[in-house]
Amino acid sequence: MPVPEQRTLWENDTGQPVTIDQTRLPFERHELVLDSLDACAHAIRSMQVRGAPLIGAVAGWGMAMAMRADASDIALRAAHDTLLATRPTAVNLRWALERCLQALQAAPPAVRAQTATFTARSICDDDVACNRRIGEHGAALLHQLVRPPRPLQILTHCNAGRIATVAWGTALAPVYWLSHQQTAIHVWVDETRPRNQGAGLTAWELNDGGVAHTIIADNAAGLMMMRGQVDAVIVGCDRLTANGDVVNKIGTYSTALAAAAHRVPFYVALPTSTIDMRCARGLDVPIEDRDDAEVTHVQGLDDSGQITRVQVTSPTSPVANPAFDITPAALVTKIITERGCIDATAQDIAALGLQ
Amino acid sequence: MPVPEQRTLWENDTGQPVTIDQTRLPFERHELVLDSLDACAHAIRSMQVRGAPLIGAVAGWGMAMAMRADASDIALRAAHDTLLATRPTAVNLRWALERCLQALQAAPPAVRAQTATFTARSICDDDVACNRRIGEHGAALLHQLVRPPRPLQILTHCNAGRIATVAWGTALAPVYWLSHQQTAIHVWVDETRPRNQGAGLTAWELNDGGVAHTIIADNAAGLMMMRGQVDAVIVGCDRLTANGDVVNKIGTYSTALAAAAHRVPFYVALPTSTIDMRCARGLDVPIEDRDDAEVTHVQGLDDSGQITRVQVTSPTSPVANPAFDITPAALVTKIITERGCIDATAQDIAALGLQ
Repeated sequence: MPVPEQRTLWENDTGQPVTIDQTRLPFERHELVLDSLDACAHAIRSMQVRGAPLIGAVAGWGMAMAMRADASDIALRAAHDTLLATRPTAVNLRWALERCLQALQAAPPAVRAQTATFTARSICDDDVACNRRIGEHGAALLHQLVRPPRPLQILTHCNAGRIATVAWGTALAPVYWLSHQQTAIHVWVDETRPRNQGAGLTAWELNDGGVAHTIIADNAAGLMMMRGQVDAVIVGCDRLTANGDVVNKIGTYSTALAAAAHRVPFYVALPTSTIDMRCARGLDVPIEDRDDAEVTHVQGLDDSGQITRVQVTSPTSPVANPAFDITPAALVTKIITERGCIDATAQDIAALGLQ
Repeated sequence: MPVPEQRTLWENDTGQPVTIDQTRLPFERHELVLDSLDACAHAIRSMQVRGAPLIGAVAGWGMAMAMRADASDIALRAAHDTLLATRPTAVNLRWALERCLQALQAAPPAVRAQTATFTARSICDDDVACNRRIGEHGAALLHQLVRPPRPLQILTHCNAGRIATVAWGTALAPVYWLSHQQTAIHVWVDETRPRNQGAGLTAWELNDGGVAHTIIADNAAGLMMMRGQVDAVIVGCDRLTANGDVVNKIGTYSTALAAAAHRVPFYVALPTSTIDMRCARGLDVPIEDRDDAEVTHVQGLDDSGQITRVQVTSPTSPVANPAFDITPAALVTKIITERGCIDATAQDIAALGLQ
């Protein structure tokens, strides 16, 4: 079986990390050399990279680039703090930085650059292996829903695909797995306002991966389910709390409510590193309010082929822009992890034995 | 009490109907003289005018303009058929055209121009009076939810406001009524993808009418309700079926599901002319699939102040664009009509005695 392990984050000939600037997708594939701590922090902050696992991996490389420049204790702590402050919600960021800190505090300054590079590579390789297993476990679950000759109809929200991770994706890993097994599959891609990660990124990468798909407005998901055109919903997750609540891209909750109303299975795919045992429930997670401009302005390609920003809202009206919402555990059919599929219950999550 | 009876459709000095080109809002207020049948049909078809009641009124004026040009039986039938074909879902269109046809078939050709003008004016005046009563009945309902000193928090989807009608609006009529009574009120305005009628039109007219409001992505409605920031949802309706199902702008259904999950009252405001007794239930209504370009491209104001269209989706990906969805009667708390508030049940609807 050919596996889609094309990486979103790789090293160039001089050992510097390189990624794709996702703010220019789907219109331009621009490679971004992350040649410093600041470049890594900026990439996370400005969403040139996004997706919890990819953010963690870039943070790991941020530590490596910092240690190459200055391996002192002060620089180590400063790099950690700078990277931690880039995004408040992504728990993988904290997880990756703690892994780096642990390895680096144990190492003398002379070998920290080398140690940090090794740790960053490990974070990347582990992510790929983890997502491959999510794909395998999720594919087994989805395979039970296949009713030939109909293609399996999946709906996804936002982008938890290959380009949200180092490879494979989380929510899309089972989709790629089935697709490479020649299972007929079609994905409804929610636009995912306000940042359009579905219409831009998920559609781009599914097209790139040869998976049949159709873009719809977020508002159309309910009708598609009412018409029986959705066999399962799969989404990723920015943070899973100890009770099984899912903190994910704004609009995930509405999709879950519609799925529940039509008894469509609602799956959440995530690496166990996304589980935050320190958070008892979703309502305890601070919800990031992002820039109004994400709602008031839309970026796209104008008729002359230039990437242009246009204002789409009434100019004098105020805006609110919460970036995430909370899907209660009761609406989640199964959680797909690299260690297998579990129920969204405190009991099943505790049984994973995470710290 | 000052009443906001500013009209969306009026007559100029030469007796021609004039309206605002809503495809240029919220950026430009451009008046459109509807000087022929074709101009009226084009305005409806291209959504320069939209909203069930306003479409009906413009169709009435379309018949009048046709009769001024040619009052023959053949022209009468042709005008009726042309206007009927402009939009398949709006039942007010059919209702208004039947009203015109009835009046005109009874009249000899010599007086048809005058009769048609009279009928068009009556349709407009009746709409204003009807919406004023919807406002009065809806305001009484909403008033029960007011808990000072908190402002009443209303969420609306799409635009069923003043500019979707000849005056007042349907969903927004109770909002304007309360606002003019000095009740503290704030409206969450759903963006309403793919055509952004909320972010563009509703926000524009609420700003124009001095009503406090905030634009949110459609995806944020669920979180707002989970946080207790919504006291009631009010939407308009493109067609109400005999059993109380609501056919309205795509995304209405998701909003209703979220409201039900949080016990937030979900109100649907409509003139009884929107009730289609010939349709037993929502699933019997054909759902208009509109142009892909509504999803793939977004119109807005670029940095140089020009209205520009940009592509926002991955260029090689297919799109589906159903324009309406069906909200089952069971999710509707009350239907607000010009004749009072009723339950969304076959019994209450039948009791209206409509044909």
